Amino acid sequence: MAKTSKISPFAPTSLPRMPAIAGVRFAVAQAGIRYANRNDLLLAVLSEGTVAAGLTTRSKTCSAPVLWCREQLKHGCARGLVANSGNANAFTGKKGHEAVRITVEAAARAVGSAPGEIYVASTGVIGEPMDAGRFAPLFGQMAKSASADAWEAAARAIMTTDTYPKLATREVAVGGQKVAIGGFCKGAGMIAPDLATMLCFIFTDAPIAQPLLQRVVAECAERTFNCITIDGDTSTSDTVLVFATGEAAKRGVNAIEDVSDAAFVDFTKALHSVMHELALAVVKDGEGLSKFVTVEVEGAEDDRAARRIAMSIANSPILKVAIAGEDPNWGRVVMAVGKSGEAADRDKLAIWFGPHPVAREGERAPEYVEQTVAAYMKRREITLRVDVGVGAGAATVWTCDFTHDYVNINADYRS
Amino acid sequence: MAKTSKISPFAPTSLPRMPAIAGVRFAVAQAGIRYANRNDLLLAVLSEGTVAAGLTTRSKTCSAPVLWCREQLKHGCARGLVANSGNANAFTGKKGHEAVRITVEAAARAVGSAPGEIYVASTGVIGEPMDAGRFAPLFGQMAKSASADAWEAAARAIMTTDTYPKLATREVAVGGQKVAIGGFCKGAGMIAPDLATMLCFIFTDAPIAQPLLQRVVAECAERTFNCITIDGDTSTSDTVLVFATGEAAKRGVNAIEDVSDAAFVDFTKALHSVMHELALAVVKDGEGLSKFVTVEVEGAEDDRAARRIAMSIANSPILKVAIAGEDPNWGRVVMAVGKSGEAADRDKLAIWFGPHPVAREGERAPEYVEQTVAAYMKRREITLRVDVGVGAGAATVWTCDFTHDYVNINADYRS
Repeated sequence: MAKTSKISPFAPTSLPRMPAIAGVRFAVAQAGIRYANRNDLLLAVLSEGTVAAGLTTRSKTCSAPVLWCREQLKHGCARGLVANSGNANAFTGKKGHEAVRITVEAAARAVGSAPGEIYVASTGVIGEPMDAGRFAPLFGQMAKSASADAWEAAARAIMTTDTYPKLATREVAVGGQKVAIGGFCKGAGMIAPDLATMLCFIFTDAPIAQPLLQRVVAECAERTFNCITIDGDTSTSDTVLVFATGEAAKRGVNAIEDVSDAAFVDFTKALHSVMHELALAVVKDGEGLSKFVTVEVEGAEDDRAARRIAMSIANSPILKVAIAGEDPNWGRVVMAVGKSGEAADRDKLAIWFGPHPVAREGERAPEYVEQTVAAYMKRREITLRVDVGVGAGAATVWTCDFTHDYVNINADYRS
Repeated sequence: MAKTSKISPFAPTSLPRMPAIAGVRFAVAQAGIRYANRNDLLLAVLSEGTVAAGLTTRSKTCSAPVLWCREQLKHGCARGLVANSGNANAFTGKKGHEAVRITVEAAARAVGSAPGEIYVASTGVIGEPMDAGRFAPLFGQMAKSASADAWEAAARAIMTTDTYPKLATREVAVGGQKVAIGGFCKGAGMIAPDLATMLCFIFTDAPIAQPLLQRVVAECAERTFNCITIDGDTSTSDTVLVFATGEAAKRGVNAIEDVSDAAFVDFTKALHSVMHELALAVVKDGEGLSKFVTVEVEGAEDDRAARRIAMSIANSPILKVAIAGEDPNWGRVVMAVGKSGEAADRDKLAIWFGPHPVAREGERAPEYVEQTVAAYMKRREITLRVDVGVGAGAATVWTCDFTHDYVNINADYRS
């Protein structure tokens, strides 16, 4: 972790009470890949019959673990997850694939599965060869000692510049019976549009077919992880995986088999809610942030255009720095709308900072009072709302401000 | 100007010796729009028969002066240029157009032309109504006192967060006789791909038809101002104007009338050279910069793809901060290539920092020595070269690093 990092002002005062999820156990260990005296290796052991669904980065230079996961998601059978922090095993050539092979073979032996049932995710420095030989001897003991309640240790083991572990959970009734969803994720730099966050792992005991699960995960990611941005940069390693053990079936819960099931709707809502909470937690731990910013765009040509405009606003360095300086510099919002390339009617454009109208009909709102809006900017959570005046498209994107601490953290991350 | 700005480490120790250009005179004045005790208004008086060519921002929320210039460039007749700093007259609604009308009518009276022969450019805060009534009474005296050698005062009058005036000049032989080109520009934030810089004005006494001039300007801008970026943000007001008075014809210089003329080729080269020098001067005065960075991309699918990849590298906040920290974090170059969305072959990708190979064939170069490359990063001018391994497309883009001073300057620009 960067030496300069301070705890995010949005760090929660307590962590959620996480449920044991039937068929899911965690173990962590110190592999010493990069960090001394902290756990940097996670093994999740999953019961037989678990299915996995997920999404990975759209980066054209994605990591070896990402390529491996994509391949295994085609069958979607899962018995284990290995994640490590400190080294992304990205841009490591043939050695990178070899490191994945060593890892999955050792983990598969430990959990008693085929190598293809082990999913792998790595986060940390890019381009540094990773010594997977350090993991292999640890898995045997980890698989034995894995427990259903080691959630916090698991979430901490995958942290890099994160300043707090990010966990979320929901219970959902499926045909009158409860199933559990729990997950965790890590940020906190290189967070951007194309599958925003880094690593997110979610577990449920719900019985659900793999193709259905994949569909739900993709839909939910579109409105959660794909709507956050810290710095507009896209990692080589972004991975969201959702594992469903199906163990709830043993308690008599019917399988979710069809999109027309009421249970499907409820499960989707609950999973969306978990992913929404985790995605926002990533933003709220953005590197060096002092403010959490919600960008709402309406009146765009369509939803896609609205999201592009919202991302253009959320990624503008000059605007993000103004927000850090508590300057209600709404002219920079106008600039960001203009540079997005999407249709906007300059003479119908309207902008609000929180409840305060700042611009309307192509010019400053007559009731705009600089002092009032400047006072609003002192808040920790800011909402920027823009109506671009051409259609019915809408989108919401979440981001943070751009501070001296971001510069501090990223100027010496590797040192 | 921001209180925190320091002089750019790339500020020249002396300014170029600018030639008098027949048919071009400058005057400056204090209109007191935003700054106290400094000139913030420029009037350039141009002789009869002057033609203008130019390009303006692609922003969808462009300023009133930009819309005015676009309209006048259709005929391209020019007798005057008015530019002011401190207020961009952007997103100022009907009042903005009214401010332009007041300005051009007053300036036209002063120089004895039609209002449509006056070009206008404004730079500064967005969204603040501009009191053009302050300009009008000044033009009469300005037109009288305008002189051919007031280049430096003219260049200084349009500065905002610039830390030094940016001037360039070339002489070019047209049919054996010399014509002069001289110009100046200003930056220094909100500088990005779609017509990069803010304001650039270039003057020549060359006799050249307006359509030909427009063609040359557009071609030269593509490889100069459209290849620089400070922060990926695009201004509402970017304007490049080139004025050709044609006065050299009085000295017997033949008109440049055809693209097959040798004179056309020479003139294009000289204009390109002036625009290249001014574009680089903008980057070298980027807000808060400590390093000047050249990004060279080759092996892309085509030149357009190469430029997109180069811009993705040049605009990555996390990489720009690493450069400020003198960290040879080439993994972030890999990331930026990957997020560009353009084709790249991960296993053929090669990266050099200056003369040092850092990556080759999809992994760290075997001869890479961290210490050597870290020492290279301490230089003030850095070159990053990337071969993405798929084709013959190439592009060069110029940018700067991202420092604490950028944050300082933009967190309190308006205060």
